[in-house]
Formats: sequence, structure tokens, C-alpha cells
Amino acid sequence: MNPVRIGICGLGTVGTGSLDVLTRNSVEIAGRAGRDIVVSHIGARGGAEIPGITVSRDVFAVADDPQVDILVESIGGTTIAKELILRAIASGKHIVTANKALIAEHGNELFAAATEAGVTIAYEAAVAGGIPIVKAMREGLAANKIEWLAGIINGTGNFILTEMRDKGRDFEDVLAEAQALGYAEADPTFDVEGIDAAHKLVILASLAFGIPLQFDKVYTEGISKISTADVGYADELGYRIKHLGVTRRTDHGIELRVHPTMIPKTRLIANVNGVMNAVLVKGDAVGPTLYYGPGAGAEPTASSIVADIIDIARSLAVEPQHRVPFLGFQTQSLSDIPILDIGAIETAYYLRMSAEDKPGVLSKVAQILSDMGISIEAIIQKEAAAGADHVPLIILTSRSVESKLMAAISDIEALPTISGDVTRIRVEALG
Amino acid sequence: MNPVRIGICGLGTVGTGSLDVLTRNSVEIAGRAGRDIVVSHIGARGGAEIPGITVSRDVFAVADDPQVDILVESIGGTTIAKELILRAIASGKHIVTANKALIAEHGNELFAAATEAGVTIAYEAAVAGGIPIVKAMREGLAANKIEWLAGIINGTGNFILTEMRDKGRDFEDVLAEAQALGYAEADPTFDVEGIDAAHKLVILASLAFGIPLQFDKVYTEGISKISTADVGYADELGYRIKHLGVTRRTDHGIELRVHPTMIPKTRLIANVNGVMNAVLVKGDAVGPTLYYGPGAGAEPTASSIVADIIDIARSLAVEPQHRVPFLGFQTQSLSDIPILDIGAIETAYYLRMSAEDKPGVLSKVAQILSDMGISIEAIIQKEAAAGADHVPLIILTSRSVESKLMAAISDIEALPTISGDVTRIRVEALG
Repeated sequence: MNPVRIGICGLGTVGTGSLDVLTRNSVEIAGRAGRDIVVSHIGARGGAEIPGITVSRDVFAVADDPQVDILVESIGGTTIAKELILRAIASGKHIVTANKALIAEHGNELFAAATEAGVTIAYEAAVAGGIPIVKAMREGLAANKIEWLAGIINGTGNFILTEMRDKGRDFEDVLAEAQALGYAEADPTFDVEGIDAAHKLVILASLAFGIPLQFDKVYTEGISKISTADVGYADELGYRIKHLGVTRRTDHGIELRVHPTMIPKTRLIANVNGVMNAVLVKGDAVGPTLYYGPGAGAEPTASSIVADIIDIARSLAVEPQHRVPFLGFQTQSLSDIPILDIGAIETAYYLRMSAEDKPGVLSKVAQILSDMGISIEAIIQKEAAAGADHVPLIILTSRSVESKLMAAISDIEALPTISGDVTRIRVEALG
Repeated sequence: MNPVRIGICGLGTVGTGSLDVLTRNSVEIAGRAGRDIVVSHIGARGGAEIPGITVSRDVFAVADDPQVDILVESIGGTTIAKELILRAIASGKHIVTANKALIAEHGNELFAAATEAGVTIAYEAAVAGGIPIVKAMREGLAANKIEWLAGIINGTGNFILTEMRDKGRDFEDVLAEAQALGYAEADPTFDVEGIDAAHKLVILASLAFGIPLQFDKVYTEGISKISTADVGYADELGYRIKHLGVTRRTDHGIELRVHPTMIPKTRLIANVNGVMNAVLVKGDAVGPTLYYGPGAGAEPTASSIVADIIDIARSLAVEPQHRVPFLGFQTQSLSDIPILDIGAIETAYYLRMSAEDKPGVLSKVAQILSDMGISIEAIIQKEAAAGADHVPLIILTSRSVESKLMAAISDIEALPTISGDVTRIRVEALG
């Protein structure tokens, strides 16, 4: 059979990694795919000299090249990348991309265009880097009604929380180190405020529940307000704090949220440390399954990109209706089940407040919670430090609808015996 | 499109689970597969009354039924099951099976017959139950040269080792409980002596390295000789004991072995407890990835069987050469790289011996190891109990070829100052 011809647009980390893996493992890859896979055209703004490969400074030249079967989009961003992909689709090329922002924000439109043209868009690398989680969700767990999933899907955030716990360091201190190590960008907002995780979670939720991509509906809360005190109290209560993307199907709709979460330290996912990623998926038939690996980096990302290329190469001549659908479900089977507002979600909560050190304070707080139907599962209250008139009061609540919990917090903050704001961290058993 | 028609042979745990999941999740499944999937014929020796489904007491009637597109083999064993599958293949049916013994021992022959007939044999459920590890290896990690993998692939064994560690209980005591709970069979040999794990490991090794299935070459050692003393010393040294299947590509050949293994307790896989399974796979591009979930049970196994059915249903009309090859690699690309004898493998070792409590004993032992080029990485030696003239001596060695280590053990056992046998447990860093 003729070799399959690949065009790579963008020679940054992802593009270079993909070129390296395709070259280094070409024998292995051909042995699996049943035909040779060669890079025939590269689009790189800065140009490059690569023997045997056409290099264009204009990435659109790759999209227009009739020799190219599969275009790898690795330029990033959501403007030129989108235009490039639409042009490549129009010229009948299959697309492979690691671009989570593009898929989460414009995936519905891109998938429609690809359907129209009878080509596919593969995006394994867009979620959790080298972990084959898209394949697991779309195919491996296809027999299941997915009940919920929870993922550590941003390596930088997990590195920061791991260092805070292991070494008692502050958020700002670890962030500076992560930037120096190259884990975090100069502008770390995408990572630490959860936007990157939200992009991935939106894709995972669509795969889990067969719903269109809805990036505008995801609730996002970062880790920049997590203190070493909270990390310590969590430990004392038998928990770890992780920055999770969580999505769950309830009777009322779908929860879709990224936020710091306390989880029991005995859970496997609580022991996923450093820059590693993991996704825990609960299916009605299989029960809990977990997928762990590197969530970023040149070679792990290339591993997923090249796996997608091999998939497409194997089925290049196959009719579109025999391919796995973009989101796992056939388009006509996608569901319009609504995404819930954050006030309507339900979890347990960790509350930390500064309480005046005198009798009756706890009973007032407990009364407010009880009036909202929320009970107290655990409390930590320590003796006041010498000379201090306030003590930290830590409460673990029962599961509650968030709007009720927030109303209770508002009432607690209004108590004259409570000073300052109440810190609130969501708690998930993940069992 | 016409519905895809399934025949299920055997209505035990696996067959019943598959029928249940196909029925309960039929809407979800059709939404993913793009067509209805219906069970049209069941073969069950004991018979059954199921509305709308033909039931035959002769399983071969299902293999001969021209209406059936896909036959699910869930009768177990390697004699009738093999005959049944060959007959179904001959009549042009695709096969789905959870039968690890059959695939490990007769897979090469069955795959050849299926290739001849242009049908497929899917066996996701044969390895690690509900974990989609076959798909991850065959497709998700297809870009990688796999370097090694290590798996907890027998839930009964892992349950026993977990209980021994958590509660300080003896092997025999926990095994009796596992039998009472239904985790272990009345004859627990398959589980605790590692035969079940060996079946799965052989399949994983073929997927990893593109080699034919070679069950006759796997080294197998069970957990029945693990003592609570070893579990305790392992903990003291920072390790946990797990019953692992390990396969690794070296310059000389492939290591293929099932045995108790000490692994650092900080590794994620060291924290996989109870009846759960996990497989840790190291690829050259992706790095380490781990897959975790239930390794047995009606519904987890059905999850994998039905995923295979959906895969086949999507590609029923596709030419055979576009399907994923049985072992991930095209048949003509399979490798004849040899399987190494256990004496040629290389790991570190934990040694425990009973040494006379007098000066000079340790130096003799160290000298024997050193003469074989083996160094000592850690030692535990405690004070003798009152009245005892022997003390336990625990040594952690450097990595060594096993034949050298065994020669050293033989010399150590010959020392007059060492009484009884030396206990030896292999140690893997898995880093």
C-alpha cells in the first residue's frame, strides 16, 4: 500500500515531538498500521531545513497540498488554527490536533464541517496528554452509562498542590519555582485559575454523557487561594486537596465544574502527585476505572497524536459511518440534558473560620447549618494560642445543595463572633 | 440499518452479565454504535426462558445460526470453547470472548483461523476484566516502543496480600476468607499460584512487543510462601509486596514472569488494594501510564465484552485489512525475539535469612554476594530475642542477573552460621 502522508503545521513542542516519534519509531508504527506513515510537508513560520520533507513558511500551503492525507495542527490558539483546520477539511484532509481550547470552544462547528466533508478530526492529545483517555471514553467504556468522572487534568496545578503538601510551602513560592522549571507559563492564569482544566473537562463531559461541547457553561475556580493551613487541616481530617475537574449526571442535569477538592487520602487518585495527570471514571457496569500518565510534554503529547494518526491510517479507505463518532455518540443521539448552575450542585464541604474563643459560638454556627438541613460530620477546634482571642474552627459538613450552603455561610459570616470570611472547599468521596 | 445480532454461549456470570448490560443500556449502546444491538440466540446447557430470544441447549446451534453476526463465548475452558469458536469462525461469525486461558494457550491458532475466514476475535475482557487495557495497548499506545509493563492482574491474590499487610493476617487465614467471600475458587491454585495472572501476562506481552502468544515460556511463582514477617520487613524498608506480572524487553530477549515483587510504596501501583487490578505500562514516548479498575465480576467483564461488540458492530461491513490486528501488529510484522529463561532476568532482591548471632557472619554473607558482583543496598539486623541464638538478617541487594544471585544464595545457605533456607523476593523500582 502507498504510504500515508502527514503534514505537520507548527514546529513547536508538539509538532517537533510528533516528527521525532514518527521518525524514531517508524518501523514499529508501520508494523502496527500495516503501511508506512511519512511526514511529507511541514508548515513552520520560521522555516526549517529537513531532508526529504517540503517545508513551507505558510501553514496554509500544507492545508492546500493535495499530497497530504492527514494534517497535524500544532500551531495552537483558536483563530488561525481554526481557519487552517477548516481549509484542510474543505480539501478533504483528516485532522489530528492537541488543541484543547479549539476543540472545547469550537469543536461543535469543526465536527459539523468534518461530517459534511466526510473526514475525521482526532484529538486524543487534547485531553490529559499521553493518557489514551479519549479512546477509553469513546470506545473502551462504550457499554456503560457514565455516572461521573473526576480528573487531575492540569499538571502545573497538581505540582503546586503536591509541593505545598509535601513541603509545607506557600502557593506563591511553589508557583515561582514551577515557572522557573518551565512547568508554568509566565502568565500562569490558564493553569492555576483552571481554564486549561475547564477546556479538558468540557471535552470529557461530552464524551461521558453524549452532550454537545459547552465551554460557556463550565464553573471554574482556581487554586490560588488554597493556604498551607487548609492543606494541613485536610491532612488531619484524612483528606488531600486536589484541583479536580468533576462532571456528574444527576436527575436534574449535569454538573460541570473545576475547583479545589478535598478527597479521602486512601483513594488512588489522591496519590497522583507532581505533574502527573489522572482521570477517574465511574461507569454503571464497570464501576470505577482510573487512567494515569503524563498530561503534557513533547513526547507524551506526540504519543497521542501518532496514535490518532495510526487509527486514521488504518481506516483511510473506510466509509465515514463506520468511524467512531467525534464525541462517541452518533450526532443524532446527542442529548440536550442541561448543565446545572453551580448553585444547584451537591457536595460535602470543608469550612474554616476564625471564631471568637468563648462559649456558645459553635452552637450558633451549628444551628445555622442545621436550619439549612446541613449536618456536621467532623470538627477540629484547637486551643487558642497564647494571647489570641480567636481560634480556627474547621467543620466538615454533610452533602448539601451549594446554594443552601452559601446561604448558611453568609449567615455565619454575619455572626459577631466570627471574624472575616469563611473559607469553603468542596469535598468529594469519589467512592 | 439492520440491528446487529448477538449469540451468547454460556449463561454463567459472564454471559448473564453481558445479557444484562446489553439489555439495560440498549439506548446508550445504540446511540454509540449507530445501530441497534440485540441478543437473538442463547446457548445454555441448562436451558432458559427469555422472551424474544431463541434458547438452545446445544451451544453449537448458536455457532450454526445464520442469523447471528457476533458470537460471545462465555462457557470457559479450552476444549469445547475452542471447538465452538472454530465452528463459529467457519460459519463467518465474529467472536467476542473473556477466555484468557483459551487466548493465551490457543490464540495463535484461533487468530490464524479468523484471518483465513476474514472475521475478528475480540478479547478485551480476557485481561484485567473491565479495564480497557487491550485497547490501550493495541491502539492508545501504538506510537510507542513499549519498554516494560507490570500488572496486578489477579484480584484474589491482591486481596490476600492487601489483607496480610493491613491486618497482619496470615496467608492461609485470608485465603479461607477469600474463598468464603467467593473471590477465590474452592481450588485456589489458578489464582494464588499465578496461573491466571500468567495467562493475562502472556497476552499483554504479545500486545506490548508484537510477539506470538507463548504460554509455555512464562515463569510463574505464587504467593503462598509470603509470610507476614516479609510483609513487615518490606514495609520497614519502604516497600509493598504485590503479586505482579512483569514483562520487559532487554537487549537479549524478553523477560516474562509472574511472582511476588517488592515495589516502592510511593509508586501509584503499590497503592492498588483489595480485589482491584492495575497495569503500569512504560512506553518510550509516553513514559509511564497506568490503567486501574475491577479485574473480575459479571458487570465489569460485561463492560469489556459489550465494548468489543460495539467495536465490531461499527465496522461489520469494513474490509478485514482495515481492522486493528489481533495483537496490535500486522501478522507479518510479528517478531521472533526470544523469551528469556528466568536465570537470565535481572532485578534487585530482598533476602531474609536466619543468622547465628555472633561476629563475622554478615561479613561472610557480604563477601559471597560481592564475589558475584552483587552489592548490598540496605540491611536490617535486629537484636536477638532473649535466649535466641539466631537473628533474622534482611538484605536488599543491587540489581543482578538471577542465576548469579541464585548461586550466591546457594553458597550462603551452605554457611554453617546460616540456618535453613534463604527467603528471596524480587524487587522492582518500576521507575
